[in-house]
Amino acid sequence: MTLHPTATDEVNRVAVTRLHAAEPVLEDVRPAGEVVPGLRPGTVLHAGPPVTWAAMCGPLRGALVGALRLEGLAASEEDVERLLVSGEVRLSPAHDHGAVGPMTGVITPSMPVFIVRNRAFGNAAFCTINEGIGKALRFGANDETVLDRLRWFAQEFGPAVGAAVRLAGGIDLRTMMARALAMGDEMHQRNVAATSLFLRALAPSLAADGSRGAALGRVFAFLAENDQFFLNLAMAAAKASADPLGDIPGCTLVTAMARNGTEFGIRVSGTGGRWFTAPAPVPRGLLFPGFSEADCNADIGDSAIIETIGLGGCAMAAAPAVVQFIGGRSVRGAVAITREMAEITVSASPHYRIPALEFEGVPAGIDVRRVVATGITPVINTGIAHRHAGVGQVGAGTVRAPLAAFKIALTVLAAEQAKGAAPTG
Amino acid sequence: MTLHPTATDEVNRVAVTRLHAAEPVLEDVRPAGEVVPGLRPGTVLHAGPPVTWAAMCGPLRGALVGALRLEGLAASEEDVERLLVSGEVRLSPAHDHGAVGPMTGVITPSMPVFIVRNRAFGNAAFCTINEGIGKALRFGANDETVLDRLRWFAQEFGPAVGAAVRLAGGIDLRTMMARALAMGDEMHQRNVAATSLFLRALAPSLAADGSRGAALGRVFAFLAENDQFFLNLAMAAAKASADPLGDIPGCTLVTAMARNGTEFGIRVSGTGGRWFTAPAPVPRGLLFPGFSEADCNADIGDSAIIETIGLGGCAMAAAPAVVQFIGGRSVRGAVAITREMAEITVSASPHYRIPALEFEGVPAGIDVRRVVATGITPVINTGIAHRHAGVGQVGAGTVRAPLAAFKIALTVLAAEQAKGAAPTG
Repeated sequence: MTLHPTATDEVNRVAVTRLHAAEPVLEDVRPAGEVVPGLRPGTVLHAGPPVTWAAMCGPLRGALVGALRLEGLAASEEDVERLLVSGEVRLSPAHDHGAVGPMTGVITPSMPVFIVRNRAFGNAAFCTINEGIGKALRFGANDETVLDRLRWFAQEFGPAVGAAVRLAGGIDLRTMMARALAMGDEMHQRNVAATSLFLRALAPSLAADGSRGAALGRVFAFLAENDQFFLNLAMAAAKASADPLGDIPGCTLVTAMARNGTEFGIRVSGTGGRWFTAPAPVPRGLLFPGFSEADCNADIGDSAIIETIGLGGCAMAAAPAVVQFIGGRSVRGAVAITREMAEITVSASPHYRIPALEFEGVPAGIDVRRVVATGITPVINTGIAHRHAGVGQVGAGTVRAPLAAFKIALTVLAAEQAKGAAPTG
Repeated sequence: MTLHPTATDEVNRVAVTRLHAAEPVLEDVRPAGEVVPGLRPGTVLHAGPPVTWAAMCGPLRGALVGALRLEGLAASEEDVERLLVSGEVRLSPAHDHGAVGPMTGVITPSMPVFIVRNRAFGNAAFCTINEGIGKALRFGANDETVLDRLRWFAQEFGPAVGAAVRLAGGIDLRTMMARALAMGDEMHQRNVAATSLFLRALAPSLAADGSRGAALGRVFAFLAENDQFFLNLAMAAAKASADPLGDIPGCTLVTAMARNGTEFGIRVSGTGGRWFTAPAPVPRGLLFPGFSEADCNADIGDSAIIETIGLGGCAMAAAPAVVQFIGGRSVRGAVAITREMAEITVSASPHYRIPALEFEGVPAGIDVRRVVATGITPVINTGIAHRHAGVGQVGAGTVRAPLAAFKIALTVLAAEQAKGAAPTG
């Protein structure tokens, strides 16, 4: 079964203009339970496609335990399992709620989230606040230091940043990301420029009323020490940018790539919210001293939404500093990755440009047809979690999206076109 | 007359290691009169080699009037001329006092200056605080808005930044500049990354004691709005780095390039503090709407100390965003400039590296012999001032250091070697 090539090209050509038209703006920081659609008490959002407790990896289990302790609903892994079996606690992919989360991606109602609105289309997307390095819920750590940081987010950091963002009238993330791309960030493995620009843009509003006292020093210290702070903002911006592409009949462009630590899933425009999955591969890269490949969890996190809009691995040529993760300190290697990604995308971004490529736009609009035809799958820059809950990050590297997911998607798209059916999802 | 080639090569080879060993650290911000050697009341420092009132360009005259009004010593151009004739006010090149200033480069005792210490050698260098765009003393503007900003620097901004720097235990500028170079800055025409990294590093200390109230918002707003804020820090860092190279017998490396708006001067290690000058050329570049080449002042400012250590024009390949100033939006053009500068330098920096060139070090250690032999003169990125006082900046572009200054220097160096004389200066 095949798709009608010319008609599909035309559908994709028009569809990708929606992606280019996106205007993601950070508007606020609010408790997830107040703003994320369908996130009721007892609901826990997680990264990637749906997953059961039985199939769940160690880090995601650990994060669930931590999040439910934070919410006062559980104290142990046994509690969590019991609550899931009884239906008192329900799991749901963050993507189904307009939200994304890095690594385990766990979101519960008390956690403050960034609200990023795509002002060109009106839709909003949500992401939690990046916890920094070391022990973090996103890697499945769940001790009191982890929960204390999340409480501080809810009580002090989130409200302070939210108030400053409102005072500033919102922060234009498209412009900020475009600038950061010209400053060596690819917005997945490296966010030091974007984080610095963000702090600089927000600092006057954070300090404006002069009433925060010592809290302000804590807020700045946290922002100063976390080079990847902007990652979660880039994720929300990417989700807000990709969602208007999400349900176009006959469109073969990828609208989400996400992993739950067990399976890697993609969504395609023409089939709406349906997930096409394959086993999640284990990323390869640089591991911290003392760890080996046997320690690495399978690929996990919603952060591949970054690659979905043409950043991260697609924009590798913009960020020579992260090339070491793909095996060498070579600018040529980085350019080669970006050139390869251009073979599976239908367009180049008019906003996100790479100086080293004479200001060409990043390759955007991943076409499942091209992926299947070429066998080239998206390169995703990613952190690597230890496979046991609580250990945390063991390294960083890259992973290839599994071809199988794209093959299934293409088969289903062709079948739907053959029967002239409306897209599912 | 010629220099002994092998012996001179060896002298230069050892000398440039001093430049590479430099560790410039921002240690404080203090009133210039308290810390700059020889800056007594009635002394005014200016950019470039020595210059008389009669030969002085419009912007420098305007800046002198503004600075002497700030100090309460004069009200008009006539007053300034009278004070200079009577000897009540004395002019002196900033370079002779371990200091540097952008454009007119005027420094008087009440102005706060950055203190940057080269911790490898113990010497300090000084530079004023960057005033931002629009009307500024450095371009010869001298109305009350200009003086009010300078008063605010002295009363609020300088003391706040100084206290934060001391609390932070100093700011390592070498590391910050190396990072910024990997983020698209060349530290002369473009400082947005370095400025953002600086604000981020200093924000926790600025906010630490929670007692600054609304002043903190003003400090952050000023830092947030001025993408070139770091330029003056880079200048002080460059001066602190170059000075230990300043007086090595037989060494033909350039230790300063500076312009006063009338003449372009260089200093060479083997001849110490002696200036070799030629008429300052008019920079070429992009002019703001409404201005033409007839409006442009000749090249002015101590900022070419940036190129003296291998940044700015020498590092053009690191900053594709500023390539437009040299006539085209081309990365290849930028790389070509950096490659050309490598022909007149004796070394590559082990610290300041360019990702786009596979992390090669910037070309450093300009050898007057190579300049004269090749006819290739240093490319300097620069702002362009209106030739009349008070109008301000009319554009930005590049300029070539005049070959004549290098020819005179080489002749003098050869003559000194011939007579076995000790270096002058």
